[in-house]
Amino acid sequence: MRRYVHDQLFIHSEAAQLRHGLSWMNRLMVTTILAAILLTVLASEETLFQPHRALFIGAEMVFGVIFGVEYLARVWAVVEDDPATPAWKMRLRFMATPVALLDLIVVISSLLPFFFSDLAVLRLIRLLRLAALIKFSHFSIALRELMHALTDRRYELLVTLALGGGLLLLGATALYWAEREVQPEAFGSIPRALYWAVITLTAVGYGDVSPVTPLGKLLASLVAMSGIGLVAMPTGIMAAAFSDAMQRRRALNDPTLARREDDETDPT
Amino acid sequence: MRRYVHDQLFIHSEAAQLRHGLSWMNRLMVTTILAAILLTVLASEETLFQPHRALFIGAEMVFGVIFGVEYLARVWAVVEDDPATPAWKMRLRFMATPVALLDLIVVISSLLPFFFSDLAVLRLIRLLRLAALIKFSHFSIALRELMHALTDRRYELLVTLALGGGLLLLGATALYWAEREVQPEAFGSIPRALYWAVITLTAVGYGDVSPVTPLGKLLASLVAMSGIGLVAMPTGIMAAAFSDAMQRRRALNDPTLARREDDETDPT
Amino acid sequence: MRRYVHDQLFIHSEAAQLRHGLSWMNRLMVTTILAAILLTVLASEETLFQPHRALFIGAEMVFGVIFGVEYLARVWAVVEDDPATPAWKMRLRFMATPVALLDLIVVISSLLPFFFSDLAVLRLIRLLRLAALIKFSHFSIALRELMHALTDRRYELLVTLALGGGLLLLGATALYWAEREVQPEAFGSIPRALYWAVITLTAVGYGDVSPVTPLGKLLASLVAMSGIGLVAMPTGIMAAAFSDAMQRRRALNDPTLARREDDETDPT
Amino acid sequence: MRRYVHDQLFIHSEAAQLRHGLSWMNRLMVTTILAAILLTVLASEETLFQPHRALFIGAEMVFGVIFGVEYLARVWAVVEDDPATPAWKMRLRFMATPVALLDLIVVISSLLPFFFSDLAVLRLIRLLRLAALIKFSHFSIALRELMHALTDRRYELLVTLALGGGLLLLGATALYWAEREVQPEAFGSIPRALYWAVITLTAVGYGDVSPVTPLGKLLASLVAMSGIGLVAMPTGIMAAAFSDAMQRRRALNDPTLARREDDETDPT
Repeated sequence: MRRYVHDQLFIHSEAAQLRHGLSWMNRLMVTTILAAILLTVLASEETLFQPHRALFIGAEMVFGVIFGVEYLARVWAVVEDDPATPAWKMRLRFMATPVALLDLIVVISSLLPFFFSDLAVLRLIRLLRLAALIKFSHFSIALRELMHALTDRRYELLVTLALGGGLLLLGATALYWAEREVQPEAFGSIPRALYWAVITLTAVGYGDVSPVTPLGKLLASLVAMSGIGLVAMPTGIMAAAFSDAMQRRRALNDPTLARREDDETDPT
Repeated sequence: MRRYVHDQLFIHSEAAQLRHGLSWMNRLMVTTILAAILLTVLASEETLFQPHRALFIGAEMVFGVIFGVEYLARVWAVVEDDPATPAWKMRLRFMATPVALLDLIVVISSLLPFFFSDLAVLRLIRLLRLAALIKFSHFSIALRELMHALTDRRYELLVTLALGGGLLLLGATALYWAEREVQPEAFGSIPRALYWAVITLTAVGYGDVSPVTPLGKLLASLVAMSGIGLVAMPTGIMAAAFSDAMQRRRALNDPTLARREDDETDPT
Repeated sequence: MRRYVHDQLFIHSEAAQLRHGLSWMNRLMVTTILAAILLTVLASEETLFQPHRALFIGAEMVFGVIFGVEYLARVWAVVEDDPATPAWKMRLRFMATPVALLDLIVVISSLLPFFFSDLAVLRLIRLLRLAALIKFSHFSIALRELMHALTDRRYELLVTLALGGGLLLLGATALYWAEREVQPEAFGSIPRALYWAVITLTAVGYGDVSPVTPLGKLLASLVAMSGIGLVAMPTGIMAAAFSDAMQRRRALNDPTLARREDDETDPT
Repeated sequence: MRRYVHDQLFIHSEAAQLRHGLSWMNRLMVTTILAAILLTVLASEETLFQPHRALFIGAEMVFGVIFGVEYLARVWAVVEDDPATPAWKMRLRFMATPVALLDLIVVISSLLPFFFSDLAVLRLIRLLRLAALIKFSHFSIALRELMHALTDRRYELLVTLALGGGLLLLGATALYWAEREVQPEAFGSIPRALYWAVITLTAVGYGDVSPVTPLGKLLASLVAMSGIGLVAMPTGIMAAAFSDAMQRRRALNDPTLARREDDETDPT
C-alpha cells in the first residue's frame, strides 16, 4: 500500500505523466490547492470575510488538515524511492528539501487558527498560504521544461536583460536631467526617475508621472521608442526556447508527433 | 435543387473552400451578417436610433426574415449530408447542434419587434443579435485550423497561462500588502488589487489605480517588468502554432507552395 | 542621355538595387523628400513659422521646383522602358498611374504659394505635401517584398484580424452593458464603448475612459487579458512572413549568404 | 607578469570566454563598475546624499582610484598584443580607441572631487560616471554578436523602422488636423502631435494627451490599431536574428549542442 501511495503522490517518470496524466491523488491535491488559494484571496475582502467568519475559518482548517495529511503521507511514502537506504534517512533528507519545507509552512499557517485568534496576526499569516502556489511544482514537468529552456538560453537572456537594465538607467538619468527642477517629487533623483522609466519602458504608462517640459517629452519619446526593441526581446527568446523544448519532449514521447526532431535524435 | 442548396450552404470539404472560395449564397450570408451586426451597433446609439426609429426597426425585421429563411433552408437541405438516414432524424440532429441553436436565437431575437414593442426589453434583446458573430463559424476553416493549432500546443499554453495567473496573484498580493492602508478603496483586498494587477501586467495601465508609496512603486516596477516575459509568451506560442498549421494546410492543397512540409507529409 | 536619366530615376531590376544601392539621382530625391517633409512638419508650428515666414515659403517653392523637374524628367524618360511603343502613349500611361498622380499633387501643392497667399487655405494645402511620403515607394524593393509577404499570408492575417474585430465588438458590448448607466458619455452606446475597447485591447490605456463599477472592472480585466493573444498575433505572423521573404530574396542575390533557402530554390 | 595581466584584462579569443568565463580581474572590474553605478544612482537622491556626504565622496574616490589603476594597467599591458610593434606605438594606438577614451573620462570624473568641491558642478560631473556602463563592452562577446545580428538584418529593420516613422508622421498629422482647435497646447502643430503619436504607437499611453472630439477618437483608434503591426515588427526581427546568431556561435564552440547549424558550417 505504501508503494501505491508513493506512485500516486510522486512524479518521477516524465514519460509516465505525459502518457497517463496526473494520478487521482494528485488531481485531488491540485483541486484542493486551487480552492485554498481562492479562499485566501476571498478572505482578504473584509466585506466578504466579516459576515461569514465562521465559514472562512472552518474551511481554512479543513484545508490545513488535508495539507497536513498529504505532508505526512509524503514523508511516510518517500522511503519507496530507494528501498536500500534506511527509512529515517530518506525521510529526513526529503523533509530538508526546499519544497517540503514550504509544504510544512503552508500546513502550519493553515492550522494556526486552531491555536490563537488574534485577527491582525492572522491576516498576515493567511497570506503565507499563497505559498501553496509553489506546491504546484510537485506536479509540473512543463515547469521543469521551462526552467531548462531558460537555462539553455541564459546567455541571450542575460545580454538582453542587461541591455534593458542599461536602457532603464539611461532613460531615468535623461529624464532626471530634464525634469528634476520642474517635478522634483517625481524626477528629483535617479531612483525616483527609475519608477517612471520602468512604467514607460514596459509600456504600462499609468500617467501618474509623465514629462511636462518640451525637452522631457522629446527624451521620453526616444526612451519609449528604443524600449520597444530592448524590452520585448527577452520575450521572443523565451517563447522560442520554451516552444522548442516542448516540441522536442513531445517528439521523444510520442513517435507519431515526431517531425524534424526525429531527424536529429535518431538519424539512423 | 435541394442538392444545390445544400452544396451552397454547407462547407464540408476544406480543400474545396480553399480552391473555390465561398459559394454565392455564403457570400450573401456573410454580407448580411456584417450588415446586421453594424445595424445593432449603430442602434445602440440613441442619438442615431431615435430620429430613425422606423428605419432601424424595419431593417431589423428584414434581417430577421433573411436569417429565418436561411435557417429553414439549412434544416431542409441538411438531409443531403447522408441520404441513408431518415430526413426527420437528420433534421432534428442538426437542429440540436449548438451552432443551429444559436442561429435560432438570432432569428427569434430579430423577429421579436413584430410581436411587442417595449423599448427597454428590446434594447437587451437587440444585443442577442451579436450572437450572429458565431454564425461565421459556419464559413471558416481557418477558425477550425486555429482551434486545432491551439489544441496542439495546449500544454505550453496551459503552463504559460498558469504562470501568468500565479504572477497576477503574487502581484496583487504584494500591492495589497504595500498599499492597503493608504488606498483601501483600490488595494483593500486581494480581489480589488487583482484589477490593478491585470491592468498592469497586460500593459494597459489606465492610471485610475496606481501605487503611491515608495514600497508600492518598487513592487509595481518589479511586477511590470516580470510581466513582460510571462504575459507575452502565450502570444508567441499561439502565433507560431497557427502559422505552422496554415503553412501545412496550404502545402497539402497547393503542391507548388509546398516546401519543407512536403518532406514530412509525403516523403516517399 | 535620356537613357542615362531613365536608368538613374527608375528601378526595374531588384538585383541591381541590392547590388549597387540607389543611384545618385535617387539619393538626391530621397534627401529632398526627407527635407521637404521636415519643412512641412516644422511649418505647422506657428511659433517657428511666423518669425521665419519668408524662409519657409522660399524653401517650399525650391522643393516645389525640384519635385516639378523630377516629375517632368520621369515623364520624359519613361519612354525608354519600351522603345517599341509610341512615346506619347508611354507617357500618358505613366501619368495615369496612381504613384505619378500623387507626384503631381505633391508638385502642385508645393507650387501653389506662387499663385495665392491666403494663409488658412495654405495651411491645409501644405499638409498635402506629406503625400511625398508615398514617393518613397519609387525606391523601395523591400516595401514590395513586405506587400508580397503580407499577400502570402493574407489568410492567417484575415482570420486573426477578424477574431480581433470580434473581440473588440464583444468587449465594447460587454462594457456598454455594464457601464452605460454610470458613464453614459463614455459607454452610452456600442460605438462609444468601441473607443474604450480599442484603447484597451491595443494596451494603450490612456485612462480617459475606464470602468468604475465592480462588474465593469471584472469585464475590463477579461477583455484586457484575452486581448493579449488575439491582438498581438498578427504581429508575429507579419514579422515571420517578412523575415522569411527577405532571407529568400537575399539568398537568391548573394550565394554566399544562401543557406537552407538554396535547398528549396535550386536543389539540383 | 605583464603577460599575465594582459591575459587577465583583455578578451581576445571568443571561444576562451565561452569556455572559461571571465578572468578573476575582469570579474572584479564588473563588480566594481556595478558598485560605482549604484553609488552614482543613490548619490542623486539628496535625502540619501546629504546625511552621508563624506561616505559617498570617499567611495567615489576609491572607485576613481580603482578605475585609474585599471586604466594604467591596460595601457601598460596592451603591448603584449603584438610584441613586434614598439611599445609606445601600441600604447598610443590603444589610448586613442573610443573605449579607452571613455575609460579616461570615467577615471577623471571620478577623481575630480579631489581637486574642487563645488556641488552644482559635481552633480553634473557625477552623471558622467554612468559612462562606465560602456566599459561593459570590454567584456561582452554577446554584445558584438547582437550588433552583428542587427547588421545582418539591417535591411528589414530599416524598412520596418521607416514604415513606423511614416506611421508616426501620418498619425500626428491626422490628430493635428482633427484636434488642433480644441487642444492647441497638445495638438497645435505636427511636432506637438508627434509626442502624442509616439506615446500612442508605443502603447505607453500616459493619458496626459488624448483626443476629445469624436473624429479625433476615431482617428486615434485607427492609429493605435495600425501601430500594433508596424511598431512591434522590428522586435520580432531583432529577437529572431539575435537568437539565430547565438545558436550558431554555440554550435561552433560546443559540438554536442550543434544541431542544424553543423549541416551548414561543416557539411563534409
